[in-house]
Amino acid sequence: MRIVPCLSMALRDMWTVSFLRDVFREFLGTALFLLIGLSSTTTLPAANTGDSISHSAELSTSSSPSNLNLLQEPPDCHLDPLRVALAFGAALVVVCVGMGEVQLNPAVTLALGLGLRLSPWRAVVFVGAQLLGALAACAILMGIVPSPLQGQLGLNEVSVAPGVLLFQAVAMETAVTFQLVLCVLAMSHPSATSKSLGPTVLGISVMLGHLTAIGYTGCGMNPARSFGPAVVMQNFHNHWVYWVGPCAGAVLAWLLRDVLLWPRWSSAGDWV
Amino acid sequence: MRIVPCLSMALRDMWTVSFLRDVFREFLGTALFLLIGLSSTTTLPAANTGDSISHSAELSTSSSPSNLNLLQEPPDCHLDPLRVALAFGAALVVVCVGMGEVQLNPAVTLALGLGLRLSPWRAVVFVGAQLLGALAACAILMGIVPSPLQGQLGLNEVSVAPGVLLFQAVAMETAVTFQLVLCVLAMSHPSATSKSLGPTVLGISVMLGHLTAIGYTGCGMNPARSFGPAVVMQNFHNHWVYWVGPCAGAVLAWLLRDVLLWPRWSSAGDWV
Amino acid sequence: MRIVPCLSMALRDMWTVSFLRDVFREFLGTALFLLIGLSSTTTLPAANTGDSISHSAELSTSSSPSNLNLLQEPPDCHLDPLRVALAFGAALVVVCVGMGEVQLNPAVTLALGLGLRLSPWRAVVFVGAQLLGALAACAILMGIVPSPLQGQLGLNEVSVAPGVLLFQAVAMETAVTFQLVLCVLAMSHPSATSKSLGPTVLGISVMLGHLTAIGYTGCGMNPARSFGPAVVMQNFHNHWVYWVGPCAGAVLAWLLRDVLLWPRWSSAGDWV
Amino acid sequence: MRIVPCLSMALRDMWTVSFLRDVFREFLGTALFLLIGLSSTTTLPAANTGDSISHSAELSTSSSPSNLNLLQEPPDCHLDPLRVALAFGAALVVVCVGMGEVQLNPAVTLALGLGLRLSPWRAVVFVGAQLLGALAACAILMGIVPSPLQGQLGLNEVSVAPGVLLFQAVAMETAVTFQLVLCVLAMSHPSATSKSLGPTVLGISVMLGHLTAIGYTGCGMNPARSFGPAVVMQNFHNHWVYWVGPCAGAVLAWLLRDVLLWPRWSSAGDWV
Repeated sequence: MRIVPCLSMALRDMWTVSFLRDVFREFLGTALFLLIGLSSTTTLPAANTGDSISHSAELSTSSSPSNLNLLQEPPDCHLDPLRVALAFGAALVVVCVGMGEVQLNPAVTLALGLGLRLSPWRAVVFVGAQLLGALAACAILMGIVPSPLQGQLGLNEVSVAPGVLLFQAVAMETAVTFQLVLCVLAMSHPSATSKSLGPTVLGISVMLGHLTAIGYTGCGMNPARSFGPAVVMQNFHNHWVYWVGPCAGAVLAWLLRDVLLWPRWSSAGDWV
Repeated sequence: MRIVPCLSMALRDMWTVSFLRDVFREFLGTALFLLIGLSSTTTLPAANTGDSISHSAELSTSSSPSNLNLLQEPPDCHLDPLRVALAFGAALVVVCVGMGEVQLNPAVTLALGLGLRLSPWRAVVFVGAQLLGALAACAILMGIVPSPLQGQLGLNEVSVAPGVLLFQAVAMETAVTFQLVLCVLAMSHPSATSKSLGPTVLGISVMLGHLTAIGYTGCGMNPARSFGPAVVMQNFHNHWVYWVGPCAGAVLAWLLRDVLLWPRWSSAGDWV
Repeated sequence: MRIVPCLSMALRDMWTVSFLRDVFREFLGTALFLLIGLSSTTTLPAANTGDSISHSAELSTSSSPSNLNLLQEPPDCHLDPLRVALAFGAALVVVCVGMGEVQLNPAVTLALGLGLRLSPWRAVVFVGAQLLGALAACAILMGIVPSPLQGQLGLNEVSVAPGVLLFQAVAMETAVTFQLVLCVLAMSHPSATSKSLGPTVLGISVMLGHLTAIGYTGCGMNPARSFGPAVVMQNFHNHWVYWVGPCAGAVLAWLLRDVLLWPRWSSAGDWV
Repeated sequence: MRIVPCLSMALRDMWTVSFLRDVFREFLGTALFLLIGLSSTTTLPAANTGDSISHSAELSTSSSPSNLNLLQEPPDCHLDPLRVALAFGAALVVVCVGMGEVQLNPAVTLALGLGLRLSPWRAVVFVGAQLLGALAACAILMGIVPSPLQGQLGLNEVSVAPGVLLFQAVAMETAVTFQLVLCVLAMSHPSATSKSLGPTVLGISVMLGHLTAIGYTGCGMNPARSFGPAVVMQNFHNHWVYWVGPCAGAVLAWLLRDVLLWPRWSSAGDWV
């Protein structure tokens, strides 16, 4: 059989301290990214004995005296798409700076693998580490966030907003991931002038995706991010949307940059 | 006739792989920029089965029990100028990084053409590609965004806010484009110290324009951006405002920088 | 008399194309900065026929059916301190990038003059240009902004919020200008590692000042910015606060950096 | 005894102009950081005679006619987590740029001390200076902020939000400080590519922490920041949470970076 030597070669390639550390960073980075990002999507507590939020509850009740049970429910602080978008964008910047170069996203790993910046077996192991990291983040969130505030545990984004057709959700996810992977590929280009700005630009891209898509699909952009809450909430309804959309976006972005506009085979030095 | 040889020279200058790729990037970049930017201006869905927005609808109804049909209409999540401004600014950063140097804006192309950084025939082709890109973005948006949420399809900015006189709208558009083109010209200057920061600064400039003008004219700043929705919605009322204002701003910015303050003929090396 | 030769020397020093261009840039930069910044503080139109703001009015009326004349008044879109803070911060970035190195602020000019980075007569001319620029910006705003939306024409910041004592207003202005001038001096230091980031950091500092002080004093930070609306609205009540506070902050920041922490006489190369 | 010579050695090491200046910068930097940051958490004045906020009060009363004493209380402008998060993040950027390299945070000092970038006695003196700076900031705030608006004087974050268990608060503080210290350690690494971006990235990290944790614990991240208001308000209830959480986060971040991923003993040049 040809499989055995091939597999042993792949294993020998991967069984190095450097690669194991990369896998660990991928796992930990995804966990940290999603732990912080998803915790910003949980509903804020209604009444805070601290001063900063306390008047919110008073205002809510006074403006809706007919609805007395509102105090038990989360107030309107939460539903600010800006807060969620800023938190996810900033979390990406912080994790990319703090953990070194990480991918955190199966769609990004797919695009880098297609662009031959990554061997296929490494890509598979990275995706596995990312999914495990997402699960770990959700498990920790279940413990950290008080249960009445957990909501769907971060964004349970499987259910698409009413009125949004499935093909529209897929297209939105594709568009949103397309722009993210475009940035990732531009940043990984050896002649990128603004290498040090990389994390910031990627953070802006993630923020942009949330600003655009959060009302339609909850903004996946990242199968690992969608996978974690789906497993923990046992809700896989329309879950395929959050795999097909981002992967299609990643493939399109790779086609555009590495095949069409800046073909990687044109200059040998391009091959990392 | 003199026209034929002149035209053939222009054609020979443009019929190169490099220029065709630039035109294609201009088309695709404008389409992507407007697709993401305009989709952030569409109204957010009212009731989202995902957790992040769901309580919004409850709150809205409870605070206005007399208005029962509100649930069908978009809630107040949408009308945040900050969200639109951040989305357009971030979209510019992402497209500039992901697609390489693109102009995306007929007013910018006009200023660069006046500054002789671009031959006139190339400028015309670029503007054409930008307008086509805007049309493509609007066509895609018509398909992606659920019809009850399309509103005027992004910003149909032809109709000026009540109380704003036409000359005021033109002046606002001029001011807002003036500052954008000033930044573009500063960034394209060969001695720009902060080349790598270019996209970020331009994104800040676009965000600023929206923060300032969104309440008065909807913020055009870019004839291509105004042209797309106008065609798709078949609404050309006062459309000239969004061509005259930005072009006047671009000409003024070019006069200030390239003629008055840093005259480009003073040093030969200035000529790109 | 000694004054005549001294004056003629100063005049000869200043009567150069380079200096006249600097003065013109100072005038135009301040005008542009305040035109954009102040226009973001004018109230947004209530009902916008464009789609982006239109539902705001509906919501406002439905949630307050007892107040029918609300539609004529500006809705709640305006009173977002974030929008004003972001607009002023972004305007500073844009003007600093687009116009080259400008000071835009009499308090900054005072600190740079004290630090001997600027001759006193140049500082006086710069301050005059800044005040004229502020007047020009306010005059243009009177024309551009529809009169029902002008409010106090940008921020008429002379009247201090009720409950805020005068010494508290001065202290707040001092603190807010102190941090801005600290950043300016750090950026003008010859060994500044992040020269290209300068405009961005100053923009963040201006944004911070508005986030902090906008509720107490309306956030001056800049005597020119306070002077313009005060002249146009003919309202000089407590206007001295917006001169004393920023100038005190500038002097304190200069004392801290140039005298106490990094004394400029310690190394000769420090003298620009 | 061994203590006396050891102490005298430490004293001789510290009794230098350079170190005393560092301690003073630590004190002043923390005071400035907290003065600006905490003042953004105080409630905004209800009725502002300036134009920018005045319509807020009108709207509040009209939408809640049953609650007539609302005008005396602070309106809803304040409870925007975005404003607080942006202010703290921007304050860090400004202070880091304006005061040079400062730590401002006992948890950061702990991590740098563990990583042997700082001698233990210096770390102790720095922490003392930071605590004194926090006290000074709170004392100044008591004077500057009008008493009806002081609330709990910035965030009195000792009281944890209802429904949040103590171990959850500690875990949230740990997570939030973990990501901050991770960034600090990455930035202090000698091979950091983006040194000049340091303050910006740390500001993003501080903003992120507030976006995430402000609803649960008020977001400490910094024992000095929690210590100041606790002393001034004489409220040490659950105060240990804001020491244990951040210190645990700092130790974990140090373990991850300096021991596990990039062990500092592997290359001698790593030792600062």
